[in-house]
Amino acid sequence: MTLADEASAFFRDLQSRTCERLEALDGRGRFGADSWSHEGGGGGITRVLSQGAVFEKAGVGWSDVSSELPDDLTPSGHVEAHAFRATGMSLILHPCSPMVPALHANFRFLERGSTCWFGGGVDLTPYYPFREDVIHFHRTLKNACDPHGPRHYARFKKWCDEYFFLPHRGETRGVGGIFFDDLGGNELDLRGHFDFVRAASEAFLPAYVPIVERRRQESYGEKERSFQLWRRGRYVEFNLLYDRGTMFGLKTKGRVESVLMSMPPLVRWPYDEKPAPGTREAELAAYLCPTDWLGADPLPVVRGS
Amino acid sequence: MTLADEASAFFRDLQSRTCERLEALDGRGRFGADSWSHEGGGGGITRVLSQGAVFEKAGVGWSDVSSELPDDLTPSGHVEAHAFRATGMSLILHPCSPMVPALHANFRFLERGSTCWFGGGVDLTPYYPFREDVIHFHRTLKNACDPHGPRHYARFKKWCDEYFFLPHRGETRGVGGIFFDDLGGNELDLRGHFDFVRAASEAFLPAYVPIVERRRQESYGEKERSFQLWRRGRYVEFNLLYDRGTMFGLKTKGRVESVLMSMPPLVRWPYDEKPAPGTREAELAAYLCPTDWLGADPLPVVRGS
Repeated sequence: MTLADEASAFFRDLQSRTCERLEALDGRGRFGADSWSHEGGGGGITRVLSQGAVFEKAGVGWSDVSSELPDDLTPSGHVEAHAFRATGMSLILHPCSPMVPALHANFRFLERGSTCWFGGGVDLTPYYPFREDVIHFHRTLKNACDPHGPRHYARFKKWCDEYFFLPHRGETRGVGGIFFDDLGGNELDLRGHFDFVRAASEAFLPAYVPIVERRRQESYGEKERSFQLWRRGRYVEFNLLYDRGTMFGLKTKGRVESVLMSMPPLVRWPYDEKPAPGTREAELAAYLCPTDWLGADPLPVVRGS
Repeated sequence: MTLADEASAFFRDLQSRTCERLEALDGRGRFGADSWSHEGGGGGITRVLSQGAVFEKAGVGWSDVSSELPDDLTPSGHVEAHAFRATGMSLILHPCSPMVPALHANFRFLERGSTCWFGGGVDLTPYYPFREDVIHFHRTLKNACDPHGPRHYARFKKWCDEYFFLPHRGETRGVGGIFFDDLGGNELDLRGHFDFVRAASEAFLPAYVPIVERRRQESYGEKERSFQLWRRGRYVEFNLLYDRGTMFGLKTKGRVESVLMSMPPLVRWPYDEKPAPGTREAELAAYLCPTDWLGADPLPVVRGS
C-alpha cells in the first residue's frame, strides 16, 4: 500500500465518520451519497445533506482522482510532471441559523511525478460572531497543531488569514483557522505530515460542534436571516473569484456538482447594503481582519469599545 | 471635444434615457443614483432600482475613469501603454417574474496610449424561453446591425455565443445576442464604429421591452420562482468565473458595488438539481447552445420534437 493509497483510505473513512457525526448532530437530515468516476481515472463519493434541522446544506466529499494537469496549471518545462493523483476529503457546512457559523475543512494528498505533498485547512465563517466561540475554535486547532511543531499553529493561522482574503472587499472570509500546503519532503517527512493531518482532521469537529450546540438555540428573525443571506454572497465571491481548489476542480474537469457543493443554498446580493453603525450586524466587520485570537489582546475593535 | 469626451457624453445621456424608460415600464420602482470617483481620475454614476413591479433589481451604470492598468492586464513590453481611459454604459435587468428574461447590455470606449476602440454587446437570458421572443430579440438586433456592415450581425452573434459560454456547464449563459470588441482603426473607422454603437444602443430596448410586455402577465408559482433562482446561479458563475468586465473592474480598483451590481438579487444553489425530463423546466437546456435563430431551421431540439 503506497502512501497515496493509505491517505486515500484514511480520507474515505474520515468522510464516513464525519457524516455519521453530523447526522447525529443535525438530528433530522440524512446524507445522500453519489459515486462518480473521473475521466482520467479514479473518482469520488459526494455526500450532501439538505434541509436538515441544523444544516441547510452540508457537503462532505471524498475523491481520489488521477489526471493530466492542463497546461496552464503546470510550470512550464515540466512536461514529465503533468500526470497527477489527488485524493482528499472536503467539507462545507451551511447552517440554517444565522447564529451558527459556516465551516469549511479540507485535507488532501497530491502526487505529481515523484513529488508528494499534503495540504489542507479548517476555517470558520460566522455571521453573528461570538468572541468566546472564535477563541474556542482557534484554541482547539492550536492544541491539535502543537504536538506536531511549535510553529505550526502560528504559521498555518497566518497562511489561513492570507489565503481566505477578499482583496476587492478588503476583508477576510471569516475568522480564519489554519491553512497549509506543500507539506512534502522525504518518506519520513511525509509520515510526519500525515500524522499532523490526522490530528487536524480529528480536531475540526471538536472545534466546531460545541459552537453549534451553544448557538443553535439562539433566537433570530427575518432581519438576521436576511443578513446571513447577504453575507453568504461574500462566500460565493471568494470561492468563484479566488479559491484555487474551485479553479483546480473545474479546470481538471472535476465533477461540477461536487466542486460546487460548496455554494451556499440561498444567497442575496442587494446593491450597496451596509449595516447601520452601532447595530449587531455592524460588529461583524471588526472580526474580518487578521486577529491574534489567542494573544494577550485578542479583542478586535467592536461597538462601544 | 475628443472622441472619448463625445462617447462619454453619449453614454451618460443613454443612461438617463434608459432609466426613464425602465421606470415607465416598471410603473412602481425608482432608480437611485450614486456618484463615485475613481482613485486614478474620473468616476461614474451607478443607478439601481430595487423591488419594482417588474424588476427585482435593475442596474444601469455610467462611468468614465482614467487609470494605470495593473501589470497583469498589460501586454509585456508596453510600459508606455499602461495609462488608459475607459468610458461606458452597462445595464443588467433581473426581473421578478421567471417568465421575463434577464437582460444585459454594455457599450464602452477605451483609450490606451494612441489606441482607441469600441466594444459592447446585448444578450438575453430567459428562464422559461419562448421561441418567438428569442427570434424577435435577434431580429431587432440584426436590423440594427445590418446598415453598418453586412457581416456585423453574423460575426457579433457568433462572438456572443462564444463569449457567454460556461465551459464547466457546457452551456451558453442564455440565448445570446451580439458581442463585439476591439472596434478600432483610424478616425474615420472610429466614427463609423460610433455610429454602429449608437444604433445598437438604440436597439436593445425595442428588442427587449415587447418581451417584457408580453410575459409580465404570465402566471407563475413557487415552482417557477424556485427554478429561476436556481438558474440565476449560472449567471453568477459566469460573471465571477469568466467575465472579463468583472475581472477588469475589480483589478482596476473599480467601485466594488458598481462592478457587482450585476449580481442577481436572490440566488439558489441546490446540490445536483436537474429538471425532470419532459417538464417545461427541462426545455431550457435546448436553448442554451449556439443556435441560428433567424435561419431556415431555427428550432432547437425541444420536448416532443
